[in-house]
Amino acid sequence: MPGGNPFGVHFVMMVEAIRTQGTDEQWERFGKRAENFEICGTYAQTELGHGSFLRGLETRADYDRATGEFVLNTPKLSAYKWWPGGLGHCSNYCLLVAQLYIDDEPKGLQMFFVQLRDEETHMPLPGIDIGEIGHKRGFYGVSNGFLGLKNVRIPRTNMLMRNAKVQPDGTFVKSPASVLTYFTMVMMRCVVTRDNATLLAMAATIATRYSAVRRQSPINPNEREPQIMDHVTQQLKLFPEIANAIAYQLSANKLWSLYHETYVDIERGDFTRLPELHNLSCVMKALCTADCNVGAERLRLACGGHGYLTSANMHLIVSSAAAACSYEGENTVLLLQVGRFLMKSWRAATEGKPLTPTASYLRGPARGETFGKWTGEWANIVAAIEYAAANKVRLAFESMSQRLAQGQTEAEAANGTGIELTQAAELHGRSFVAATFLAYVTGPTVSERSAALNRVLERLLELYLVHTALRHLSDILQVNC
Amino acid sequence: MPGGNPFGVHFVMMVEAIRTQGTDEQWERFGKRAENFEICGTYAQTELGHGSFLRGLETRADYDRATGEFVLNTPKLSAYKWWPGGLGHCSNYCLLVAQLYIDDEPKGLQMFFVQLRDEETHMPLPGIDIGEIGHKRGFYGVSNGFLGLKNVRIPRTNMLMRNAKVQPDGTFVKSPASVLTYFTMVMMRCVVTRDNATLLAMAATIATRYSAVRRQSPINPNEREPQIMDHVTQQLKLFPEIANAIAYQLSANKLWSLYHETYVDIERGDFTRLPELHNLSCVMKALCTADCNVGAERLRLACGGHGYLTSANMHLIVSSAAAACSYEGENTVLLLQVGRFLMKSWRAATEGKPLTPTASYLRGPARGETFGKWTGEWANIVAAIEYAAANKVRLAFESMSQRLAQGQTEAEAANGTGIELTQAAELHGRSFVAATFLAYVTGPTVSERSAALNRVLERLLELYLVHTALRHLSDILQVNC
Repeated sequence: MPGGNPFGVHFVMMVEAIRTQGTDEQWERFGKRAENFEICGTYAQTELGHGSFLRGLETRADYDRATGEFVLNTPKLSAYKWWPGGLGHCSNYCLLVAQLYIDDEPKGLQMFFVQLRDEETHMPLPGIDIGEIGHKRGFYGVSNGFLGLKNVRIPRTNMLMRNAKVQPDGTFVKSPASVLTYFTMVMMRCVVTRDNATLLAMAATIATRYSAVRRQSPINPNEREPQIMDHVTQQLKLFPEIANAIAYQLSANKLWSLYHETYVDIERGDFTRLPELHNLSCVMKALCTADCNVGAERLRLACGGHGYLTSANMHLIVSSAAAACSYEGENTVLLLQVGRFLMKSWRAATEGKPLTPTASYLRGPARGETFGKWTGEWANIVAAIEYAAANKVRLAFESMSQRLAQGQTEAEAANGTGIELTQAAELHGRSFVAATFLAYVTGPTVSERSAALNRVLERLLELYLVHTALRHLSDILQVNC
Repeated sequence: MPGGNPFGVHFVMMVEAIRTQGTDEQWERFGKRAENFEICGTYAQTELGHGSFLRGLETRADYDRATGEFVLNTPKLSAYKWWPGGLGHCSNYCLLVAQLYIDDEPKGLQMFFVQLRDEETHMPLPGIDIGEIGHKRGFYGVSNGFLGLKNVRIPRTNMLMRNAKVQPDGTFVKSPASVLTYFTMVMMRCVVTRDNATLLAMAATIATRYSAVRRQSPINPNEREPQIMDHVTQQLKLFPEIANAIAYQLSANKLWSLYHETYVDIERGDFTRLPELHNLSCVMKALCTADCNVGAERLRLACGGHGYLTSANMHLIVSSAAAACSYEGENTVLLLQVGRFLMKSWRAATEGKPLTPTASYLRGPARGETFGKWTGEWANIVAAIEYAAANKVRLAFESMSQRLAQGQTEAEAANGTGIELTQAAELHGRSFVAATFLAYVTGPTVSERSAALNRVLERLLELYLVHTALRHLSDILQVNC
């Protein structure tokens, strides 16, 4: 449903957050009511002034020891909550992310369960300034809202306290580990990746069907107009996107497997694979949403004027992907994180230290090994993409090193190397997708599929690899000259 | 006004078409009323089943000699008019493009002035099935409509008859030259090019201002959050698009000059430069709308979540550019036309025959001259782009020749070479833009501008050239190895 719905955030985020971050008592008191849709809520984090930089959020929750309450305030315009899905018209509660203060001392971001509207009349409660943020490019059904708070009081026991706690006397007990919160964000990126792979597949399906039904412009005069799919330029719009969609489906599945394995590891107290999963989820979310945005738009254009109509469903698909480039971690911000992970990996590779499996392709290039000969075989193309990625990682590392040697801080050097870092991250992600696709098509599951299906998958793999190599041809030519 | 308005087609197309294609009597009878907005109309050409392939239009106008009338019909669903701007709710007349038949003999497409709704009540007239085509990605204000006709009769004198004519006895007089109709399409492509260059500049302005106002994510911890423009990755999103916008503004102006010069030539009966203008308007329309679509979306993304709100105006700009990729000549169809023009030009170049000025860069490569040495100077980068373009033209020509030698028809060979033809056309257009930008910055107008402005323009030129060279780096590396 590309138009979205106003209860998605309620169910996927608010209910889950109460379940995982709230105490058992809190789950009984309001978690279950939310799960049963007796009340409807949202997750209110992003503000008008801050999205990517979480620590910059300005909504305050001051603990009042005298009454055992938190006093919630929106100190300035930029602190207004802005975007929460369903907040505009459909929420009577929310989980509010706010800076906790005790005796005016900041204690970091915490989550607070807050009633916004009367359960019977749906009228906003005193001190609550609430509404819808207006027309958007897409997500017409989501009712994104704004929220300001003025001296709104909630009981102490409405702060989610499975981890961090505020005791009645105002003593603050830190969360034993921030990994759980962090892990929810990893999970969301895996969800977004999978959803966008599906969106791209939907767009490819619509455009392909249209190209089979639509007839236009005879190739030979006096012959019947052909299905537009018979025009070679139309094939170039459709087929690579079909291959992209399959490539992302398979690598999103692989990411999910890794997520579940890591989840089990963490339950056992083993955090070894978390950095890899974290970075893989960042780069996959960024690449998949960006490629879905561009690819679905290309497919929409392949439907000519008809693709412009909402009834074709194409532009809502594009608009969903376009939104996904910005939410749950802005894509460039995510790629920069991955770039910094790759800097550590490159250093480890040059020092002969262990590498995470998906970065192990750096080892050879870090030792000075060269790509060798272009043969055009599948594994050879994957290796070429990996060498191109490693070369970008090396260039970024050299830029970082030079800047640090010139006396820049780590952060200044990273900003100055921002372009190289994002390019390295992009090719790193591309390598993962290509290697995953290759492993799937040539791996042990071959025997579980029909020969006909295997033939189709092999062609799609080849198309994906050739298309990706052409896309990064200048990067490949630079390591292959 | 990116949302468009429902009277644009009335004023730009219908009134102009009556003025240029109608007789003086017709202009007096209904042209002036339209010009004064006493009546409102649209230009109804595209049908549900046919857009790009004009000859495939199915709406019929049969001449009835007995009554001196045309009988207008929509013979099947696919013949419904679909898309005319303003038709949905705001037109009481239209210029209908239909296949003229006399005694069941087809006489080609003609334009007919038809009343659709009562001037007082606005109710559809008998035989008229009319309405709005539904929600679209953008152009919310345009009221695009559909139209079916069932035995609607109009007087013979309502066919626009400045050129082709139908006499009372049913004698058909052909248009002396189809150049005028054709020239209107050239003019429209020049308009679309200029408008999209402006749209890209608007998007760049909004995103740049936002990047100056918005502060987010400290570069060094404990320092104030910087303007987001200080993040290098943000600069990569903004600055190349500013350069693109200026490059397209300048080359759209150049195209306009050429249009006006050619107009004067044609008035004097000199058609020499028409093929060049025609092809230049095709490639400029295709490149400028495609780059505006992609570039404005990149700029929209640079505004984060705020760019998603309609109030930011960004997505309506993107949506306008997205529509422009399909209307007034679908971009791929236009590039294929230019590709075929380049095939003729390449043959002429290899045979030492004259070339149009904007294709003259083919001469050297056609003689086998090589690019020479990369110096990175402005003129050198322009030459590199031209050599890359010439190389693509050569590859397309070789593919065409091989296919023809294998016995394919010209049309089959052109379809099989479609990808090479569009790539050649794209680089041809890019060469024109780059050369135009270079000529403007280094040409005689330098002395008319302040030193400060010249410095800015020089930097933008350099950025444009470097960015374009990087974009086509693999093509350039292939001619420069």
